[in-house]
Amino acid sequence: MTLPTKGRFITVEGTEGVGKSTNIDFIRELLNSANIPHIVSREPGGTPLAEEIRNVLVVPREEKMCELSELLLVFAARAQHLDQLIRPALARGEWVLCDRFTDATFAYQGGGRGLSAELIASLQTMVQGDLRPDCTLLLDAPVDVGMSRAGARGALDRFEREKLAFFEKVRAAYLAQVAAEPTRFKVVNASADLGSVQSEIAAALAAQIAAYQAAMHV
Amino acid sequence: MTLPTKGRFITVEGTEGVGKSTNIDFIRELLNSANIPHIVSREPGGTPLAEEIRNVLVVPREEKMCELSELLLVFAARAQHLDQLIRPALARGEWVLCDRFTDATFAYQGGGRGLSAELIASLQTMVQGDLRPDCTLLLDAPVDVGMSRAGARGALDRFEREKLAFFEKVRAAYLAQVAAEPTRFKVVNASADLGSVQSEIAAALAAQIAAYQAAMHV
Ligand SMILES: Nc1ncnc2c1ncn2[C@@H]1O[C@H](COP(=O)(O)OP(=O)(O)OP(=O)(O)O)[C@@H](O)[C@H]1O
Ligand SMILES: Nc1ncnc2c1ncn2[C@@H]1O[C@H](COP(=O)(O)OP(=O)(O)OP(=O)(O)O)[C@@H](O)[C@H]1O
Ligand SMILES: [Mg+2]
Ligand SMILES: [Mg+2]
Repeated sequence: MTLPTKGRFITVEGTEGVGKSTNIDFIRELLNSANIPHIVSREPGGTPLAEEIRNVLVVPREEKMCELSELLLVFAARAQHLDQLIRPALARGEWVLCDRFTDATFAYQGGGRGLSAELIASLQTMVQGDLRPDCTLLLDAPVDVGMSRAGARGALDRFEREKLAFFEKVRAAYLAQVAAEPTRFKVVNASADLGSVQSEIAAALAAQIAAYQAAMHV
Repeated sequence: MTLPTKGRFITVEGTEGVGKSTNIDFIRELLNSANIPHIVSREPGGTPLAEEIRNVLVVPREEKMCELSELLLVFAARAQHLDQLIRPALARGEWVLCDRFTDATFAYQGGGRGLSAELIASLQTMVQGDLRPDCTLLLDAPVDVGMSRAGARGALDRFEREKLAFFEKVRAAYLAQVAAEPTRFKVVNASADLGSVQSEIAAALAAQIAAYQAAMHV
Protein backbone atom coordinates (compact mmCIF):
# COMPACT_ATOMS: atom_id res chain seq x y z
CA MET A 1 0.00 0.00 0.00
CA THR A 2 1.24 3.47 -0.85
CA LEU A 3 0.49 6.11 1.72
CA PRO A 4 -0.99 9.40 0.53
CA THR A 5 2.17 11.44 1.19
CA LYS A 6 5.86 10.96 0.55
CA GLY A 7 7.89 9.72 3.51
CA ARG A 8 10.50 11.80 5.30
CA PHE A 9 14.15 10.81 5.28
CA ILE A 10 15.77 11.45 8.68
CA THR A 11 19.44 10.75 9.36
CA VAL A 12 21.38 10.74 12.62
CA GLU A 13 25.07 11.64 12.53
CA GLY A 14 27.99 12.14 14.87
CA THR A 15 31.36 10.74 15.93
CA GLU A 16 31.83 7.44 17.79
CA GLY A 17 29.74 6.89 20.91
CA VAL A 18 27.86 10.20 20.95
CA GLY A 19 24.51 8.40 21.24
CA LYS A 20 23.32 7.72 17.68
CA SER A 21 21.96 4.21 18.33
CA THR A 22 20.40 5.24 21.64
CA ASN A 23 18.57 8.13 20.01
CA ILE A 24 17.56 6.20 16.92
CA ASP A 25 15.67 3.96 19.37
CA PHE A 26 14.11 7.05 20.92
CA ILE A 27 12.99 8.44 17.53
CA ARG A 28 11.58 5.04 16.61
CA GLU A 29 9.40 5.30 19.71
CA LEU A 30 8.34 8.83 18.75
CA LEU A 31 7.25 7.58 15.31
CA ASN A 32 5.50 4.57 16.78
CA SER A 33 3.56 6.83 19.16
CA ALA A 34 2.61 9.05 16.24
CA ASN A 35 1.52 6.00 14.19
CA ILE A 36 3.92 6.92 11.41
CA PRO A 37 4.98 3.95 9.26
CA HIS A 38 8.76 3.83 9.08
CA ILE A 39 11.84 1.71 8.65
CA VAL A 40 15.09 1.98 10.60
CA SER A 41 18.42 1.32 8.93
CA ARG A 42 22.08 2.16 9.08
CA GLU A 43 25.09 2.88 6.89
CA PRO A 44 27.27 1.47 5.66
CA GLY A 45 24.83 -1.42 5.39
CA GLY A 46 21.07 -1.78 5.45
CA THR A 47 20.68 -4.77 3.11
CA PRO A 48 22.43 -8.15 3.29
CA LEU A 49 24.73 -7.21 0.39
CA ALA A 50 25.40 -3.71 1.74
CA GLU A 51 26.23 -5.32 5.10
CA GLU A 52 28.73 -7.59 3.27
CA ILE A 53 30.34 -4.43 1.93
CA ARG A 54 30.25 -2.88 5.43
CA ASN A 55 32.14 -5.89 6.64
CA VAL A 56 34.84 -5.40 3.99
CA LEU A 57 35.08 -1.77 5.14
CA VAL A 58 35.34 -2.29 8.88
CA VAL A 59 37.29 -5.50 9.32
CA PRO A 60 40.95 -4.84 10.19
CA ARG A 61 43.47 -6.51 7.87
CA GLU A 62 47.17 -6.30 7.14
CA GLU A 63 46.77 -4.68 3.70
CA LYS A 64 46.19 -0.92 3.89
CA MET A 65 42.92 0.05 2.19
CA CYS A 66 43.56 3.08 -0.01
CA GLU A 67 41.34 6.13 0.58
CA LEU A 68 39.70 5.97 -2.83
CA SER A 69 38.84 2.30 -2.51
CA GLU A 70 37.25 3.03 0.87
CA LEU A 71 35.20 5.86 -0.65
CA LEU A 72 33.99 3.72 -3.57
CA LEU A 73 33.04 0.87 -1.24
CA VAL A 74 31.00 3.29 0.89
CA PHE A 75 29.11 4.49 -2.19
CA ALA A 76 28.71 0.94 -3.56
CA ALA A 77 26.95 -0.01 -0.32
CA ARG A 78 24.90 3.20 -0.48
CA ALA A 79 23.77 2.59 -4.07
CA GLN A 80 22.48 -0.83 -3.06
CA HIS A 81 20.83 0.50 0.10
CA LEU A 82 19.05 3.23 -1.86
CA ASP A 83 17.95 0.85 -4.60
CA GLN A 84 16.68 -1.95 -2.38
CA LEU A 85 15.48 -0.22 0.76
CA ILE A 86 15.47 3.57 1.04
CA ARG A 87 13.88 4.67 -2.23
CA PRO A 88 11.15 2.00 -2.16
CA ALA A 89 10.23 2.91 1.44
CA LEU A 90 10.07 6.65 0.71
CA ALA A 91 8.01 5.92 -2.42
CA ARG A 92 5.55 3.91 -0.32
CA GLY A 93 5.21 6.96 1.94
CA GLU A 94 7.14 5.56 4.88
CA TRP A 95 9.71 7.46 6.90
CA VAL A 96 13.28 6.27 6.74
CA LEU A 97 15.37 6.69 9.86
CA CYS A 98 19.03 6.03 9.17
CA ASP A 99 22.06 5.79 11.48
CA ARG A 100 24.65 7.71 9.35
CA PHE A 101 24.42 8.59 5.66
CA THR A 102 26.41 10.69 3.18
CA ASP A 103 27.25 13.39 5.72
CA ALA A 104 29.36 10.72 7.41
CA THR A 105 31.22 10.24 4.13
CA PHE A 106 32.05 13.94 3.92
CA ALA A 107 33.10 13.78 7.58
CA TYR A 108 35.09 10.50 7.68
CA GLN A 109 36.43 10.06 4.14
CA GLY A 110 36.57 13.83 3.54
CA GLY A 111 37.55 15.43 6.86
CA GLY A 112 39.16 12.33 8.35
CA ARG A 113 40.99 10.82 5.37
CA GLY A 114 41.50 14.05 3.46
CA LEU A 115 39.63 13.25 0.23
CA SER A 116 38.25 16.34 -1.48
CA ALA A 117 34.65 17.40 -0.98
CA GLU A 118 34.33 17.81 -4.77
CA LEU A 119 35.20 14.16 -5.34
CA ILE A 120 32.70 13.04 -2.72
CA ALA A 121 30.05 15.38 -4.09
CA SER A 122 30.45 13.94 -7.60
CA LEU A 123 29.84 10.42 -6.26
CA GLN A 124 26.93 11.73 -4.22
CA THR A 125 25.29 13.01 -7.41
CA MET A 126 26.10 9.80 -9.29
CA VAL A 127 24.51 7.60 -6.61
CA GLN A 128 21.77 9.77 -5.12
CA GLY A 129 20.77 12.16 -7.90
CA ASP A 130 19.11 14.95 -5.93
CA LEU A 131 17.97 12.77 -3.01
CA ARG A 132 19.10 14.28 0.31
CA PRO A 133 17.85 13.70 3.86
CA ASP A 134 14.94 15.93 4.81
CA CYS A 135 16.43 16.42 8.25
CA THR A 136 19.79 15.46 9.76
CA LEU A 137 20.30 15.37 13.51
CA LEU A 138 23.96 15.91 14.28
CA LEU A 139 24.79 14.72 17.77
CA ASP A 140 27.75 16.90 18.59
CA ALA A 141 30.11 16.45 21.52
CA PRO A 142 33.84 16.63 22.15
CA VAL A 143 35.44 13.50 20.75
CA ASP A 144 36.56 12.21 24.14
CA VAL A 145 33.00 12.36 25.51
CA GLY A 146 31.77 9.88 22.90
CA MET A 147 34.87 7.75 23.23
CA SER A 148 34.55 7.39 26.97
CA ARG A 149 30.83 6.57 26.57
CA ALA A 150 31.54 3.93 23.94
CA GLY A 151 34.17 2.57 26.32
CA ALA A 152 35.49 -0.94 25.95
CA ARG A 153 33.32 -2.74 23.40
CA GLY A 154 35.59 -5.64 22.59
CA ALA A 155 37.73 -5.75 19.45
CA LEU A 156 38.00 -2.38 17.72
CA ASP A 157 37.04 -2.15 14.05
CA ARG A 158 39.17 -0.45 11.37
CA PHE A 159 37.64 2.98 12.05
CA GLU A 160 37.58 2.69 15.83
CA ARG A 161 41.34 2.09 15.70
CA GLU A 162 41.92 5.61 14.42
CA LYS A 163 43.54 8.14 16.74
CA LEU A 164 41.92 11.09 18.47
CA ALA A 165 43.25 13.54 15.84
CA PHE A 166 41.30 11.65 13.14
CA PHE A 167 38.01 12.03 15.02
CA GLU A 168 38.74 15.70 15.73
CA LYS A 169 38.93 16.22 11.96
CA VAL A 170 35.70 14.24 11.52
CA ARG A 171 33.89 16.40 14.06
CA ALA A 172 35.20 19.61 12.49
CA ALA A 173 34.05 18.43 9.05
CA TYR A 174 30.56 17.71 10.40
CA LEU A 175 30.37 21.22 11.85
CA ALA A 176 31.59 22.73 8.57
CA GLN A 177 28.74 20.94 6.77
CA VAL A 178 26.25 22.42 9.20
CA ALA A 179 27.55 25.87 8.34
CA ALA A 180 27.03 25.09 4.64
CA GLU A 181 23.51 23.63 5.07
CA PRO A 182 22.06 25.14 8.25
CA THR A 183 18.45 24.38 7.31
CA ARG A 184 18.79 20.65 6.84
CA PHE A 185 20.90 20.10 9.96
CA LYS A 186 19.76 20.25 13.55
CA VAL A 187 22.78 20.25 15.88
CA VAL A 188 22.05 18.60 19.20
CA ASN A 189 24.33 19.11 22.19
CA ALA A 190 25.16 15.47 22.81
CA SER A 191 27.28 16.23 25.89
CA ALA A 192 24.09 16.93 27.82
CA ASP A 193 22.25 14.29 29.81
CA LEU A 194 20.09 11.92 27.79
CA GLY A 195 16.84 13.59 28.88
CA SER A 196 17.95 16.94 27.47
CA VAL A 197 19.21 15.34 24.26
CA GLN A 198 15.88 13.64 23.73
CA SER A 199 13.87 16.81 24.40
CA GLU A 200 15.94 18.60 21.77
CA ILE A 201 15.35 15.78 19.29
CA ALA A 202 11.61 15.62 19.97
CA ALA A 203 11.35 19.39 19.49
CA ALA A 204 13.33 19.22 16.24
CA LEU A 205 10.97 16.60 14.79
CA ALA A 206 7.66 17.85 16.20
CA ALA A 207 6.73 20.12 13.30
CA GLN A 208 7.54 17.48 10.66
CA ILE A 209 5.58 14.82 12.50
CA ALA A 210 2.58 17.14 12.76
CA ALA A 211 2.82 18.12 9.08
CA TYR A 212 2.96 14.49 7.98
CA GLN A 213 0.00 13.55 10.15
CA ALA A 214 -2.01 16.46 8.77
CA ALA A 215 -1.22 15.35 5.21
CA MET A 216 -2.27 11.80 6.08
CA HIS A 217 -5.64 12.89 7.45
CA VAL A 218 -6.66 15.16 4.59
CA MET B 1 65.70 -1.60 -7.55
CA THR B 2 64.21 0.68 -10.16
CA LEU B 3 64.87 -0.31 -13.74
CA PRO B 4 66.07 2.37 -16.14
CA THR B 5 62.84 2.49 -18.13
CA LYS B 6 59.14 2.56 -17.27
CA GLY B 7 57.33 -0.76 -17.47
CA ARG B 8 54.67 -1.58 -20.04
CA PHE B 9 51.09 -2.25 -19.02
CA ILE B 10 49.57 -5.07 -21.09
CA THR B 11 45.97 -6.25 -20.65
CA VAL B 12 44.18 -9.26 -22.08
CA GLU B 13 40.45 -9.02 -22.69
CA GLY B 14 37.59 -11.06 -24.10
CA THR B 15 34.37 -12.88 -23.24
CA GLU B 16 34.21 -16.07 -21.17
CA GLY B 17 36.47 -18.95 -22.20
CA VAL B 18 38.13 -17.34 -25.23
CA GLY B 19 41.58 -18.18 -23.89
CA LYS B 20 42.67 -15.27 -21.69
CA SER B 21 44.29 -17.38 -18.94
CA THR B 22 45.92 -19.72 -21.44
CA ASN B 23 47.49 -16.83 -23.31
CA ILE B 24 48.48 -14.92 -20.21
CA ASP B 25 50.62 -17.98 -19.43
CA PHE B 26 52.04 -17.82 -22.93
CA ILE B 27 52.91 -14.11 -22.63
CA ARG B 28 54.51 -14.76 -19.26
CA GLU B 29 56.81 -17.24 -21.01
CA LEU B 30 57.59 -14.68 -23.73
CA LEU B 31 58.61 -12.15 -21.07
CA ASN B 32 60.61 -14.73 -19.16
CA SER B 33 62.51 -15.66 -22.32
CA ALA B 34 63.18 -11.98 -22.97
CA ASN B 35 64.38 -11.50 -19.36
CA ILE B 36 61.81 -8.79 -18.80
CA PRO B 37 60.84 -8.33 -15.14
CA HIS B 38 57.07 -8.48 -14.81
CA ILE B 39 54.12 -9.28 -12.63
CA VAL B 40 50.95 -11.10 -13.64
CA SER B 41 47.60 -10.14 -12.15
CA ARG B 42 43.89 -10.15 -12.83
CA GLU B 43 40.76 -8.08 -12.32
CA PRO B 44 38.61 -7.79 -10.42
CA GLY B 45 41.23 -8.70 -7.84
CA GLY B 46 45.00 -8.69 -7.70
CA THR B 47 45.49 -7.95 -3.98
CA PRO B 48 43.96 -9.80 -1.00
CA LEU B 49 41.49 -6.95 -0.40
CA ALA B 50 40.66 -6.57 -4.10
CA GLU B 51 40.06 -10.34 -4.19
CA GLU B 52 37.66 -9.94 -1.24
CA ILE B 53 35.78 -7.41 -3.36
CA ARG B 54 35.90 -9.78 -6.35
CA ASN B 55 34.27 -12.38 -4.18
CA VAL B 56 31.44 -9.98 -3.28
CA LEU B 57 31.01 -9.33 -7.02
CA VAL B 58 30.95 -12.90 -8.29
CA VAL B 59 29.22 -14.89 -5.56
CA PRO B 60 25.57 -15.59 -6.40
CA ARG B 61 23.06 -14.47 -3.75
CA GLU B 62 19.34 -13.98 -3.44
CA GLU B 63 19.49 -10.15 -3.31
CA LYS B 64 19.83 -8.55 -6.74
CA MET B 65 22.96 -6.38 -6.94
CA CYS B 66 22.04 -3.08 -8.59
CA GLU B 67 24.07 -2.07 -11.65
CA LEU B 68 25.58 0.99 -10.00
CA SER B 69 26.69 -0.93 -6.92
CA GLU B 70 28.36 -3.47 -9.20
CA LEU B 71 30.15 -0.70 -11.08
CA LEU B 72 31.39 0.99 -7.89
CA LEU B 73 32.63 -2.32 -6.48
CA VAL B 74 34.58 -2.95 -9.69
CA PHE B 75 36.27 0.44 -9.40
CA ALA B 76 36.84 0.04 -5.64
CA ALA B 77 38.78 -3.15 -6.37
CA ARG B 78 40.61 -1.39 -9.21
CA ALA B 79 41.64 1.59 -7.05
CA GLN B 80 43.18 -0.80 -4.54
CA HIS B 81 44.87 -2.89 -7.24
CA LEU B 82 46.38 0.24 -8.83
CA ASP B 83 47.53 1.63 -5.48
CA GLN B 84 49.06 -1.54 -4.08
CA LEU B 85 50.28 -3.43 -7.12
CA ILE B 86 50.06 -1.93 -10.62
CA ARG B 87 51.43 1.59 -10.13
CA PRO B 88 54.33 0.48 -7.90
CA ALA B 89 55.35 -2.23 -10.40
CA LEU B 90 55.24 0.15 -13.38
CA ALA B 91 57.19 2.73 -11.35
CA ARG B 92 59.87 0.11 -10.65
CA GLY B 93 60.11 -0.46 -14.41
CA GLU B 94 58.41 -3.85 -14.44
CA TRP B 95 55.81 -4.93 -16.97
CA VAL B 96 52.31 -5.59 -15.71
CA LEU B 97 50.33 -8.30 -17.44
CA CYS B 98 46.69 -8.23 -16.40
CA ASP B 99 43.79 -10.58 -17.15
CA ARG B 100 41.00 -7.99 -17.76
CA PHE B 101 40.99 -4.30 -16.83
CA THR B 102 38.77 -1.28 -17.47
CA ASP B 103 37.86 -2.35 -21.01
CA ALA B 104 36.01 -5.22 -19.33
CA THR B 105 34.05 -2.65 -17.32
CA PHE B 106 32.97 -0.81 -20.47
CA ALA B 107 32.08 -4.20 -22.00
CA TYR B 108 30.32 -5.93 -19.05
CA GLN B 109 28.88 -3.08 -16.97
CA GLY B 110 28.45 -0.83 -20.02
CA GLY B 111 27.52 -3.10 -22.94
CA GLY B 112 26.18 -5.96 -20.83
CA ARG B 113 24.34 -4.13 -18.04
CA GLY B 114 23.53 -1.00 -20.01
CA LEU B 115 25.31 1.62 -17.86
CA SER B 116 26.41 4.67 -19.85
CA ALA B 117 29.95 4.95 -21.16
CA GLU B 118 30.07 8.53 -19.79
CA LEU B 119 29.42 7.28 -16.25
CA ILE B 120 32.10 4.61 -16.57
CA ALA B 121 34.54 7.09 -18.11
CA SER B 122 34.09 9.49 -15.20
CA LEU B 123 34.99 6.74 -12.73
CA GLN B 124 37.88 5.73 -14.95
CA THR B 125 39.29 9.25 -14.66
CA MET B 126 38.62 9.38 -10.92
CA VAL B 127 40.47 6.10 -10.28
CA GLN B 128 43.12 5.98 -13.00
CA GLY B 129 43.84 9.60 -13.86
CA ASP B 130 45.40 9.23 -17.30
CA LEU B 131 46.80 5.73 -16.77
CA ARG B 132 45.72 3.41 -19.59
CA PRO B 133 47.14 0.07 -20.77
CA ASP B 134 49.94 0.47 -23.31
CA CYS B 135 48.57 -2.45 -25.27
CA THR B 136 45.36 -4.45 -25.00
CA LEU B 137 44.99 -7.84 -26.62
CA LEU B 138 41.34 -8.53 -27.34
CA LEU B 139 40.76 -12.23 -27.86
CA ASP B 140 37.69 -12.15 -30.06
CA ALA B 141 35.51 -15.13 -30.94
CA PRO B 142 31.79 -15.85 -31.26
CA VAL B 143 30.36 -16.14 -27.77
CA ASP B 144 29.47 -19.82 -28.13
CA VAL B 145 33.06 -20.73 -29.06
CA GLY B 146 34.34 -19.48 -25.69
CA MET B 147 31.38 -20.96 -23.85
CA SER B 148 31.89 -24.41 -25.27
CA ARG B 149 35.62 -24.19 -24.51
CA ALA B 150 34.99 -23.13 -20.92
CA GLY B 151 32.54 -26.04 -20.72
CA ALA B 152 31.44 -27.42 -17.38
CA ARG B 153 33.62 -25.84 -14.69
CA GLY B 154 31.51 -26.59 -11.64
CA ALA B 155 29.24 -24.02 -10.01
CA LEU B 156 28.68 -20.94 -12.19
CA ASP B 157 29.45 -17.52 -10.72
CA ARG B 158 27.11 -14.50 -10.90
CA PHE B 159 28.45 -13.43 -14.32
CA GLU B 160 28.68 -16.92 -15.82
CA ARG B 161 24.97 -17.33 -15.07
CA GLU B 162 24.10 -14.61 -17.58
CA LYS B 163 22.43 -15.61 -20.85
CA LEU B 164 23.94 -15.67 -24.33
CA ALA B 165 22.35 -12.31 -25.22
CA PHE B 166 24.30 -10.66 -22.38
CA PHE B 167 27.62 -11.92 -23.70
CA GLU B 168 26.71 -10.91 -27.26
CA LYS B 169 26.31 -7.36 -25.96
CA VAL B 170 29.64 -7.65 -24.12
CA ARG B 171 31.42 -8.79 -27.29
CA ALA B 172 29.83 -6.01 -29.34
CA ALA B 173 30.91 -3.43 -26.75
CA TYR B 174 34.49 -4.72 -26.87
CA LEU B 175 34.51 -4.36 -30.66
CA ALA B 176 33.06 -0.86 -30.42
CA GLN B 177 35.94 0.11 -28.11
CA VAL B 178 38.43 -1.21 -30.65
CA ALA B 179 36.87 1.07 -33.25
CA ALA B 180 37.28 4.03 -30.86
CA GLU B 181 40.90 3.21 -29.91
CA PRO B 182 42.38 1.19 -32.77
CA THR B 183 45.99 1.92 -31.79
CA ARG B 184 45.87 0.58 -28.26
CA PHE B 185 43.95 -2.58 -29.14
CA LYS B 186 45.21 -5.60 -30.98
CA VAL B 187 42.30 -7.87 -31.95
CA VAL B 188 43.29 -11.51 -32.06
CA ASN B 189 41.12 -14.09 -33.81
CA ALA B 190 40.54 -16.37 -30.85
CA SER B 191 38.53 -18.89 -32.88
CA ALA B 192 41.74 -20.06 -34.52
CA ASP B 193 43.84 -22.92 -33.17
CA LEU B 194 46.06 -22.07 -30.22
CA GLY B 195 49.25 -22.04 -32.31
CA SER B 196 47.86 -19.33 -34.59
CA VAL B 197 46.56 -17.31 -31.62
CA GLN B 198 49.97 -17.40 -30.00
CA SER B 199 51.79 -16.39 -33.20
CA GLU B 200 49.49 -13.38 -33.48
CA ILE B 201 50.16 -12.44 -29.86
CA ALA B 202 53.92 -12.86 -30.18
CA ALA B 203 53.92 -10.69 -33.29
CA ALA B 204 51.83 -8.04 -31.56
CA LEU B 205 54.28 -7.78 -28.66
CA ALA B 206 57.57 -8.23 -30.55
CA ALA B 207 58.22 -4.56 -31.27
CA GLN B 208 57.48 -3.50 -27.68
CA ILE B 209 59.68 -6.21 -26.25
CA ALA B 210 62.54 -5.18 -28.53
CA ALA B 211 62.09 -1.49 -27.68
CA TYR B 212 62.14 -2.20 -23.95
CA GLN B 213 65.24 -4.34 -24.24
CA ALA B 214 66.98 -1.66 -26.25
CA ALA B 215 66.13 0.95 -23.59
CA MET B 216 67.46 -1.37 -20.89
CA HIS B 217 70.81 -1.84 -22.60
CA VAL B 218 71.53 1.81 -23.34
N1 LIG C 1 23.41 11.83 26.55
C1 LIG C 1 24.01 10.78 27.08
N2 LIG C 1 24.58 10.83 28.30
C2 LIG C 1 25.22 9.78 28.83
N3 LIG C 1 25.36 8.60 28.22
C3 LIG C 1 24.83 8.48 26.98
C4 LIG C 1 24.13 9.53 26.36
N4 LIG C 1 23.74 9.12 25.13
C5 LIG C 1 24.15 7.84 24.99
N5 LIG C 1 24.80 7.45 26.12
C6 LIG C 1 25.46 6.16 26.37
O1 LIG C 1 26.68 6.20 25.61
C7 LIG C 1 26.96 4.91 25.08
C8 LIG C 1 27.13 5.03 23.58
O2 LIG C 1 25.85 5.36 22.99
P1 LIG C 1 25.42 4.80 21.57
O3 LIG C 1 25.79 3.38 21.41
O4 LIG C 1 24.01 5.20 21.36
O5 LIG C 1 26.39 5.71 20.66
P2 LIG C 1 26.62 5.60 19.11
O6 LIG C 1 26.80 7.00 18.64
O7 LIG C 1 25.58 4.78 18.47
O8 LIG C 1 28.02 4.84 19.06
P3 LIG C 1 28.74 4.17 17.78
O9 LIG C 1 29.36 5.32 17.06
O10 LIG C 1 29.77 3.26 18.40
O11 LIG C 1 27.68 3.46 17.01
C9 LIG C 1 25.81 4.01 25.50
O12 LIG C 1 26.21 3.30 26.63
C10 LIG C 1 24.69 4.97 25.82
O13 LIG C 1 23.82 4.46 26.79
N1 LIG D 1 42.73 -21.25 -29.43
C1 LIG D 1 42.21 -22.25 -28.72
N2 LIG D 1 41.71 -23.33 -29.32
C2 LIG D 1 41.16 -24.33 -28.61
N3 LIG D 1 41.06 -24.33 -27.26
C3 LIG D 1 41.55 -23.28 -26.61
C4 LIG D 1 42.13 -22.18 -27.28
N4 LIG D 1 42.52 -21.26 -26.37
C5 LIG D 1 42.17 -21.77 -25.16
N5 LIG D 1 41.60 -22.98 -25.31
C6 LIG D 1 41.05 -23.83 -24.25
O1 LIG D 1 39.79 -23.23 -23.89
C7 LIG D 1 39.56 -23.37 -22.50
C8 LIG D 1 39.33 -21.99 -21.90
O2 LIG D 1 40.54 -21.26 -21.97
P1 LIG D 1 40.93 -20.20 -20.83
O3 LIG D 1 40.67 -20.74 -19.48
O4 LIG D 1 42.32 -19.73 -21.15
O5 LIG D 1 39.89 -19.06 -21.19
P2 LIG D 1 39.58 -17.73 -20.35
O6 LIG D 1 39.30 -16.69 -21.38
O7 LIG D 1 40.66 -17.48 -19.38
O8 LIG D 1 38.24 -18.17 -19.60
P3 LIG D 1 37.52 -17.39 -18.41
O9 LIG D 1 36.78 -16.25 -19.06
O10 LIG D 1 36.58 -18.39 -17.84
O11 LIG D 1 38.59 -16.94 -17.46
C9 LIG D 1 40.78 -24.07 -21.91
O12 LIG D 1 40.49 -25.45 -21.81
C10 LIG D 1 41.86 -23.85 -22.98
O13 LIG D 1 42.81 -24.87 -23.01
MG1 LIG E 1 25.74 3.09 17.17
MG1 LIG F 1 40.55 -17.12 -17.28
